[in-house]
Formats: sequence, structure tokens, C-alpha cells
Amino acid sequence: MSYLDDILKSRRDTRHFTTDEVPDEVMENALRAGHWAPSVGLTDATRYYIIKATEVKKAIKDLFLDYNKKAEALTDNPEQKEHYKSLKLEAIEEAPIGLIIAYDRSVLNQFTIGTVGSNEAVKFSSVCAAQNIWLSLTEQGYGMGWVSILNYYQFKKILDLPENIEPLGYFCIGKPATNYDNQPMLQQLNWKQKSETPECTEIKNVVENSVLESSKISTSVKINDDFSKLLQEKIDSKTKPIGALGTLEDLAFQMGTVFETLEPKITNPNIVVFAADHGIANHGVSAYPQDVTRQMVANFLEGGAAINVFCKQHNIQLSIVDAGVNYDFPTNANLINAKIAKGTQSFLHLPAMREMEVELCFEKGKEIVENIVKSGSNCIGFGEMGIGNTSTASVLMSLLTGFPIEECVGKGTGVEDEKLIQKQNLLKKAIENYSGQAELKQQLAYFGGFEIIQMAGGMLAAFENKMLILVDGFICSVAYLIAFKMNPNIKKNAIFCHCSAEQAHQKLLDYLEAKPILNLDLRLGEGTGCAIALPLLKSAEAFLNEMASFESAGISKK
Amino acid sequence: MSYLDDILKSRRDTRHFTTDEVPDEVMENALRAGHWAPSVGLTDATRYYIIKATEVKKAIKDLFLDYNKKAEALTDNPEQKEHYKSLKLEAIEEAPIGLIIAYDRSVLNQFTIGTVGSNEAVKFSSVCAAQNIWLSLTEQGYGMGWVSILNYYQFKKILDLPENIEPLGYFCIGKPATNYDNQPMLQQLNWKQKSETPECTEIKNVVENSVLESSKISTSVKINDDFSKLLQEKIDSKTKPIGALGTLEDLAFQMGTVFETLEPKITNPNIVVFAADHGIANHGVSAYPQDVTRQMVANFLEGGAAINVFCKQHNIQLSIVDAGVNYDFPTNANLINAKIAKGTQSFLHLPAMREMEVELCFEKGKEIVENIVKSGSNCIGFGEMGIGNTSTASVLMSLLTGFPIEECVGKGTGVEDEKLIQKQNLLKKAIENYSGQAELKQQLAYFGGFEIIQMAGGMLAAFENKMLILVDGFICSVAYLIAFKMNPNIKKNAIFCHCSAEQAHQKLLDYLEAKPILNLDLRLGEGTGCAIALPLLKSAEAFLNEMASFESAGISKK
Repeated sequence: MSYLDDILKSRRDTRHFTTDEVPDEVMENALRAGHWAPSVGLTDATRYYIIKATEVKKAIKDLFLDYNKKAEALTDNPEQKEHYKSLKLEAIEEAPIGLIIAYDRSVLNQFTIGTVGSNEAVKFSSVCAAQNIWLSLTEQGYGMGWVSILNYYQFKKILDLPENIEPLGYFCIGKPATNYDNQPMLQQLNWKQKSETPECTEIKNVVENSVLESSKISTSVKINDDFSKLLQEKIDSKTKPIGALGTLEDLAFQMGTVFETLEPKITNPNIVVFAADHGIANHGVSAYPQDVTRQMVANFLEGGAAINVFCKQHNIQLSIVDAGVNYDFPTNANLINAKIAKGTQSFLHLPAMREMEVELCFEKGKEIVENIVKSGSNCIGFGEMGIGNTSTASVLMSLLTGFPIEECVGKGTGVEDEKLIQKQNLLKKAIENYSGQAELKQQLAYFGGFEIIQMAGGMLAAFENKMLILVDGFICSVAYLIAFKMNPNIKKNAIFCHCSAEQAHQKLLDYLEAKPILNLDLRLGEGTGCAIALPLLKSAEAFLNEMASFESAGISKK
Repeated sequence: MSYLDDILKSRRDTRHFTTDEVPDEVMENALRAGHWAPSVGLTDATRYYIIKATEVKKAIKDLFLDYNKKAEALTDNPEQKEHYKSLKLEAIEEAPIGLIIAYDRSVLNQFTIGTVGSNEAVKFSSVCAAQNIWLSLTEQGYGMGWVSILNYYQFKKILDLPENIEPLGYFCIGKPATNYDNQPMLQQLNWKQKSETPECTEIKNVVENSVLESSKISTSVKINDDFSKLLQEKIDSKTKPIGALGTLEDLAFQMGTVFETLEPKITNPNIVVFAADHGIANHGVSAYPQDVTRQMVANFLEGGAAINVFCKQHNIQLSIVDAGVNYDFPTNANLINAKIAKGTQSFLHLPAMREMEVELCFEKGKEIVENIVKSGSNCIGFGEMGIGNTSTASVLMSLLTGFPIEECVGKGTGVEDEKLIQKQNLLKKAIENYSGQAELKQQLAYFGGFEIIQMAGGMLAAFENKMLILVDGFICSVAYLIAFKMNPNIKKNAIFCHCSAEQAHQKLLDYLEAKPILNLDLRLGEGTGCAIALPLLKSAEAFLNEMASFESAGISKK
């Protein structure tokens, strides 16, 4: 074993420290070691924060305790829970020095080398710095412990870290009080055994790449005139003046027509939220950082978002799709994996996606809907989540309808007035930069995005399967526009659940000659408009199937 | 500088290699070094794949070239673009060994330590392994280059990596052909200068955490500015952009205010349908004979009307009141007897009611609502049934608002165009015939009707009892107008459920500065608008009480 090997092997994740001070020189050497770590594209994004104050450590310890309780609750196994509770996982208050290693993600606002496939390279550089610091401290006779169990949102808040600074964790530094018998503490305490050797496989050949061809769309059955007459007669026979239930009567007629029955019934309604990231988000078109996409997906999975609440309220099945979020989600039975890539590229200068990916999106969307059909559902709502996706939607609307971009741009979820002009100009430039043809799939490839195209694919499949298609807000309506351009017959099945506060939405609905059910100034997305409109569809179903007729109630007609 | 420092400092991101082979022993040492890296919760998630085959390297190189072109297009600056193109950013085909360092995210499927705040700790462990390998190779006289510019989706696909394996990148390994003058290559080539020193700041204090804990707030705070502020803060703390739930947010605020709690909850909602007959119906103002009023009351009692169907759908208690139907109903436990008389007189020539009957109506309305309060209800919807009552309502609207009668007359439930002028003229004449004072109760006595005034009395009582008051269509809004003239405070409690197809309704809502929730062209009455709007109130309640907050979900605010 080499000298380096000794250091690498004896480096420990330390949670037990003596009360010895850490000399300034030791810290200087350690941070210098961190600075020698690789830095993708020489972005130099790593930032360090030192903590010595007792008050600050105490506040951080409280955050740890809060989340450690959460962690504890994650295991049902009582033995494991007890074992877990007995483990010392931090030394926040005892370690003389606290260090925060963080990265400044604002470096991505400029052209950087090595971040086109994934911008995670920036944070990885900081992790390399962390490891260098660990090794340097080890060589100098000191130790470090990485505390990752924290609510990072609160953590940044109490330390007043700027929005663009992302901490890797809190690092406890001091003189180790033990060497854990030269092994990881968790192994010493029999939590787990570290595997003897690394897992390494040789890859000897490549798999040929096969692009799927989107299936051909067949046209629907023509609804028989006689059937339409019978359906209208049934609606008019109910004990109310003709037409007095307004839109509910139109909905009842549509449902009867789509389901091809005089007694239509919505079964197992399902809302699918497609989530993906957009490269354009890096240009400040949204009030929120891109990271919010994955945070919101986590929120969907936890049940805390608006769409969860509304689906629960109305007994709607909720499906969450990772269509291309810039994050690795752990495998989760409740998350449908249809990830095409970790977000699109920014279409400001180059294509957001490749044409092959467009086909893939249509396929994935179709596949997802077909699985929902198998669950016995005949009514599917489409929702989306994706920081930056109003920009993508605006550009697509402009290209597909011919309206100037100014009329297709809205504020998105929270952009202020001053930024609106900036956003318009940016998108205008992007459209000008587009040198491709006015061909739908080329345009989709150039501008994206994954969730929008998957929704369009899903809508086409929903039509094929004779489902009601619930269209949510602006972005979802743009997905509908794409699907409609490919098969105008889908209009028969589409219900436009609401007109959003997004100014372009009304314009698009007018273009589509679509009459929205609700006008509640919603601008949330997630399929929330579909969810809260569902009871009105059920009301339409109920009056048609349950109300008495003039005949049955013995009431005079006029 | 220590021995370790020498290694740390001389480690280079290498893109120039000699053709020398890499002995197996060197790779074994390197991977062992990787294996000594930290592993969060001892998850041992790092996986290695070795690539030596030319064909595989070629395919990966193609992926690099594809994405590097993309990267190139990201800068507008022609000089920067040329400089970028001149940079050698990989050595995929030349380096004798290719290594993929990846992590298996399926380890997260089980209970793991240290991943509750962010599961990124798993990938960070693998990055530490990458750094260890880099250092080990450096010590052994070899070099490594990290290629991150890749389409990871394709990368995984052509290498047939399982879904759960996430590569950090492709790593080129070999004997370095240069030491880049002991500095990062990008610095040597004047792309950028690495900063001289690490950026480090000491954090000396924490920012006080002002997060509300709603559980600590007592549920019956007195309504004042502080309460309103707290309520608004609670609404704004939910995981959605501020205001994104539009009208639902207004409703939540109103419910909190009316119920004086941050956790408002609608209990035992009740819709009361007041039915009565109108003497004016004998003058052909309605398309239906007066007898339909009692037929419809029978239909309500039988459960066959629209309001029955919608109340059943939404679990709303339905109360039917005989406020003055021109028929003797047999005693029926489900019919509340508040009959003042068998219909009013026609107001065309003489008063519809006596002044004493007006007081009686207010009393009856109050009594009915107070009984509903006793059932534990805090939310009451008002509906009506009465052939001819749009005429009565139109006249009252004209008198109480000052709008000419022409603007207050609608078609009622089914009057044809030709008849509309006739109706207008009739009502105009009736108003001209009125010789009484412009005093509210005198006017009410002169024009009626029983159900309208009982509704007004009921609304005033509902306000006294801190209930939500659901206002249905045109006639119900006129009842509200009466109550509002008597106590303008009731506005705080009123929810205007819909704007009807009755043309005068929009005008009246504008006069009342009331924003209706639904616009569905309903013109049925019976409280049907209240019934189908209720799920939206429940949605407002649900989002306020059940959605996660930014704090609890750990989501970045803008």
C-alpha cells in the first residue's frame, strides 16, 4: 500500500471528536487541497463557509434533529428503528469547526464547458473538493464528518445563503476521538458490512439503437345521426326547461357521444401529470429555479401539492410521470419513468431535442395512456409541471397558430411585468434563430419539450381509446394544439376544463373554438383545472342518468 | 507541501495520452482506492464498467461529438466559439482504458441512512470514489480525464446499462502525454484563469426563522388585521406560486374570515329551496302554467329534480320550503311549512301582499335558517321555485337599483322573444301603477313575493350566525339585494355561485360588485348553481388545510 492508500483507507466519516481546537493552518491547508480539486470548465463554483459560533451550530443541530426524526419514521421495522436511533450521525455541536461546502449554480448562467449533457458536473466538482479536504485533514491528523440529513431549504434560510448557493451538506471538523477500529462506523456497529471489493464489469459491445416509429392514427367511428337525436331527446325530457342546465347539457351530450351510450358514466378518472425540465429555464424566463421541477415532483409523490389534494377530494387516480426532469429520482412505484433526458437543451441557440426524441415522446405518452386504459379508466386529465415550460409553450403556440410571439407570451407562474418584455424578446430571438422548416415534428424537436409532446401523444392515444380528454391550462392546451394538428377528430373528445389567467390561453382557446368550463384565474398547471372541473362532468352525468322526466314526474310541459 | 498535497496538486483532467498500456495492477489499485471512498449509509452504490473495445469507444465518441456540437452552438461570441472548437475535451478513442463510474440508485429503494434531506448523497459518494481513483492514478504515474459532455440517455442505451444505473460520465485513463505545465489545461490555453485562493466566508449568526407553525395558532382568533395577515400568509405559504389558485384563494380567504379560523371547514352544508306562487303568473309572463310550481315541489320531494341529483352527488342536505304555493300539500315531514298564503295577488293593479306578511316572511326565513344552524351547518345555499318569479324579481331589481325595467327583464325559464316585449310592457305598467313610497318594505309588500322575502330574511339570519351564504341565480340575487340593502355587512359572507343566462343577472352582479364563481349559462334556479359550486368551495377548503407549505416540503420559493 502506498502512502496515499494509507490516507485514503484511514479517512473516516467522523462523528466523535476531542475538544482540541483546529489550528487555522490546518484549515488553510485543507481548503487549499479543496481548491486543487477539478472544476468543470474551470467554473470555480465551489464556495466555503466556516462556522464556529455556538448559536449557529445549535440552530443547525435543531434542523438535523427535525429531519432525523423524519428519517427514523421511514422504517417500519422496530428493531431497525431502535438501531437507527442509537446511531450517532453527527457532531454538529461538539466539533470545533463547522464547514459548509457549496457550489454557486449561477456559474451556469454563462457559457460553460462540460455542462451540456448534464449540469451536475458543477456540483460534482465541489464534491471532489470535499473529498480532497477530507484527505488533507486525514493526513494532518484531523477528521471530518459529512452531515447530509438536513432540510436544505431551512438550512439556507437560517444561514442567509443566497438562492444560487447550493450546499452539499454540513461538515464537522476536529480531532477524531476514535478510529472506529479502522473501519466505517456503521460497519463497526454492525449496521452493514462494506463489500470486500468494488463492483466492476467490462462492457464489450454496444446495443444498436432502434428508433420507434409513431403509430399511424386511424380515424374514428362516425356518430350515427339517430343516436344523436335520441340523446338530445333524453336531455330535453328532463324536468327542467329546455337548455336550462346550460353547459352541463352540452357536457352530457358530449359524454354520451364519446362513450356511445345514452347512459354515459365516467369510470376510474385519472389525471396524469407529466414533468420535465427545459433548458430555456436557465435564461431567467421563470421566477423559480429549475430545481423546483424536481422538488414539486417530490411534493406530488408526498401528496402535498394542490393536485394531490384535489384528486383526493374527488377520488381521482393521480399518475406522476418523469418525462425528463433534470434529476435522478430514486425508483418509486408511484413515479412513472418516461425520462427522455435530464431536461431539454436551451432552444435559444440550438435544438432542445433530437427528432428521434420527439418520436420517443409520442410513444411514451401513448404507452402511459394505454396502461391507464387497462385500469378501466375512460376519462383522463392531462397536467404538467416544468419550470420554464410556458416559454416553450408560447413559442410552439406562435409557430403553430401564426400569432406573433407577443400575443402568445404570458407571465408564467409568477414572472413580474418588467421581466415580461425580456421574456418576449428572448423568445422572439429564439424563433428568429430557428432556421428549420415549418414542419411540425422539426419544430417540436427544436423547441421541445418532453412533457408537452408526451401529453400530445397521450391525447392521441386517449382519443383512439374513446376516452374523454380533459385539457387543463395553457401548456396543456398547447399540447392539445399539437395533437389537434395531427388529428383534428380529437376535438370531439376534448373538454377544456378552464381558461387560465395566462393571457395567451384565452387567445388559444378562441383559436381552437373551445369553450372552457371554468374561469377561475387559475395559473398553476399540474392538472388542477381538470381535477376541480370533474364534479361538473359528474353533475352532467348525474342529471342525464338520474333526473326524472316530465313524463315520469307527471309535470306539465309548456 | 505534503506528499499528499503534491498528488492533489498534480492531478490533472487529462486529454492527452501516450499509447502505453495501463497494467491491470494499476487499475486494481485505482478501483480499490475508489472503494475506500465514503459511501453514505454504507450503501455501496458505486459501480464500475471498464471499456477496452474499439467499437464501444467509437460509439461513445459519436455521442460526444453530437453533444459537443450542441455545446458549441451555445455561444454567440464567434471568438469564443472558435476557441471552444479548438479545445480537445476528450480522449475517448486514444485512451487505452475507458471507465464508467456510476451509482445504483436502486439502493434508495430500501431504508438508507443519510438520504432524507437529499438523496444526492448517494451520487456524491460515487463522485468521492472518482476523486480517489484520480488521485491513485496520479500517484501511480497515470492520468484520467472526465468526459461529461454526453447524452446520458443514449449512453445508457447503447451500453445496455440497467435503468437504475446512473453514470457520472465517461473516464479516459492512460499514461499522460503532457503535464500541461502543471496547471489545468483550460488555464494553460488561456480559456480561463483558476482563482488563486478558495472562496471562504465565516457565518457568525443565524437569521431568525419566522416560519409560522399553524398548529400553535388558536383556532378562534379575533378577526383583525393580524388575523387577516396570518390567513393570507398561510395561503401564500402553500406550494404554488402566489395567487396561482385564483378564485379558490379568494374563497379560502373568505371562508377563513367568515369562520374566524385559519382552518376553515364547511360542516353540514344545506340548500333550502323556497317555493311560492305569484299572481303575476296569470298574465302570461311565464311559459309554464302556475301549476308547475306545485308539480315541481312534488318532484323535489320525490327526488327527481336537478337539485336532488346535485345535492345527492355532493352530500348536501336539501330542505324544501312551502313559502306560499297555490296548493294544499298533504302533510309531509320533508316539506317545511312556511306558507303565508296560496300565492300572491297580481301586482299589476293592487298589492301582491300585505305589509304584515312581509314581516312574517322575514321571520319565517330567519326561523328556517336558525333550525338549520342547530343541525350543525355553517354553510347555506338559497334556491327558489315559483312560476312567474322572474317578473317579481325584475320589478324589485328595477326599484331597488334604479335601472330601467327593460334592463331588468329576462326571459325567465323559457319565454320566447316575441313575448319578451309584452312582459316588459306589462311590468313597466305595473311600476307606473305603483303609487306607494320608495320605502323598501312598502315596495316588497306591493310586489312580493313570499319566497323572495323569506330568502332575504334567511340570508340576514345566516349572516348573524356566521354562516357562508351561497347565492344562486337571478331571483336569489334579488333576495340578496334586499338583504344587502338592510345590512350591507352580509356581503362578507356571501358567495355568488354563478352568473346565469338571464341577461339581467350579470347587470345585477355588477351592481353588487359581486364576482360569480361559475359561468355555465344555467337558468334553472332551485339552488342548482349553489349545489354544483360547492365542490369548488370544498377545493378551497382542502388546499388551505391539506396542501404542503414551501417550508414543510422543502421547496425553493422564487
